[in-house]
Amino acid sequence: MATKKLSRRRLFTEVGKIAAGAALGTAILGAGSRTGIQGRAQQEVPPWPWPYRELDPQAVAERAYEAYYEGHCCYGAFEGLIGELREQVGEPYTFIPTKMMEYGKGGGVGWGTLCGALNGASAAITLVTGDYTRVVNELIGWYTITPMPAYKPTSPKLEIPDVTSVSESPLCHVSVTKWCNAAGFGSKSPERKERCARLTAQVAAHAAELLNQIAERPEEFSGVWTPPASVEECLSCHGPHGTVANVFGKMDCLMCHERHR
Amino acid sequence: MATKKLSRRRLFTEVGKIAAGAALGTAILGAGSRTGIQGRAQQEVPPWPWPYRELDPQAVAERAYEAYYEGHCCYGAFEGLIGELREQVGEPYTFIPTKMMEYGKGGGVGWGTLCGALNGASAAITLVTGDYTRVVNELIGWYTITPMPAYKPTSPKLEIPDVTSVSESPLCHVSVTKWCNAAGFGSKSPERKERCARLTAQVAAHAAELLNQIAERPEEFSGVWTPPASVEECLSCHGPHGTVANVFGKMDCLMCHERHR
Repeated sequence: MATKKLSRRRLFTEVGKIAAGAALGTAILGAGSRTGIQGRAQQEVPPWPWPYRELDPQAVAERAYEAYYEGHCCYGAFEGLIGELREQVGEPYTFIPTKMMEYGKGGGVGWGTLCGALNGASAAITLVTGDYTRVVNELIGWYTITPMPAYKPTSPKLEIPDVTSVSESPLCHVSVTKWCNAAGFGSKSPERKERCARLTAQVAAHAAELLNQIAERPEEFSGVWTPPASVEECLSCHGPHGTVANVFGKMDCLMCHERHR
Repeated sequence: MATKKLSRRRLFTEVGKIAAGAALGTAILGAGSRTGIQGRAQQEVPPWPWPYRELDPQAVAERAYEAYYEGHCCYGAFEGLIGELREQVGEPYTFIPTKMMEYGKGGGVGWGTLCGALNGASAAITLVTGDYTRVVNELIGWYTITPMPAYKPTSPKLEIPDVTSVSESPLCHVSVTKWCNAAGFGSKSPERKERCARLTAQVAAHAAELLNQIAERPEEFSGVWTPPASVEECLSCHGPHGTVANVFGKMDCLMCHERHR
């Protein structure tokens, strides 16, 4: 079994190398041999999803932490993962300007919706696997039940107390406020930003762990998240198969709605 | 003034052409002359943000509508915008596998957070302008106060009643349920999906309008959104400059919280 697992891992890496090499071949060929609609030579990129190579979660975390201070949470997580692939694989990852994900900061330029670290990590996940639905779903679910931040930077930009909180929600607004209440710092304080930098590193690293897991043994991929009781209960009527059928979603209903019969 | 405005627009387009041309030059040169860390030739892409060219909102809407049925809302909006740039400009837009944004569907693989059309359009906006904060903020704000869907497809996949709703929220979960309640269709019905396809087209087209506006006259860029009264009121204490200071965000507070003193 150990041999089989190792073979799968090696095979996956080799497939990545071959795909990257093939992409390079077509790219050079493309530059010399193909002409586009505007008379300019065209370059080719590999088809989606791009070839993944197993990542070191610790390296991803460190890169994401540093990147947070260059472009906030969403860019931080995206650059943590794609930056590592750019360094490990090279092309085609050099083609992506990772700053394109910067808008996810503060749950979408400060609107407080989807946590930017989740948003950026999810974009990176989806770039490298067509099986992204299972991975992203697990990453978001894990986020809602995990004490954060747990990552300790090698060279912290700021020392903060060792206080964690569990968001129970993938929303930036909820996640930030729960930590502010637990730690006693303001929503725009340097301490809260440092907390989000460490959270970004933790989320990006866990995304790398999940990607490594699904790359190596997709059939054994499993997670820690199960839907909250309220989702099961409320959606029995309000969900797609219920009598009301006016809702879909996986966020805990009782955080915003009162229970009724 | 008309001449000046026209000149600005022309200049912007010309700058885009030059930048794209320069990118091509370095790309070809790169393929032949540079060698990366693994002994493979490296190609260059233009620095972020990428050169924008004025888009036809109607063409963006049609492409986004069709793309929705190939990969849901987030991919739909992203492909609507980036697909048009790929066709109009070519490289470097050919480098981006637009399917990387598919995870945003249903507010993040069905979690119901940030509307996927907003997420995908925001990624496209941020790829092409460093001034993305103003544009994305206005797009999200506009979304919360605009009756949708208003876009009528040239070739509808499905006929649906002419019922619109105003989400008052950027969250997929809220937006979908408000329309389901208004139109009387289920959350997973074909009619709701058609509604989301049209909404995706409308959001992508408006993103193109905003991008055209900020490209042409950045100093005159303005929007229709102002923060809800509850945000102004609640954040006077709970916001970064208040006495509690445990919150940031722009979503209407009273949708999930009760008023208190």
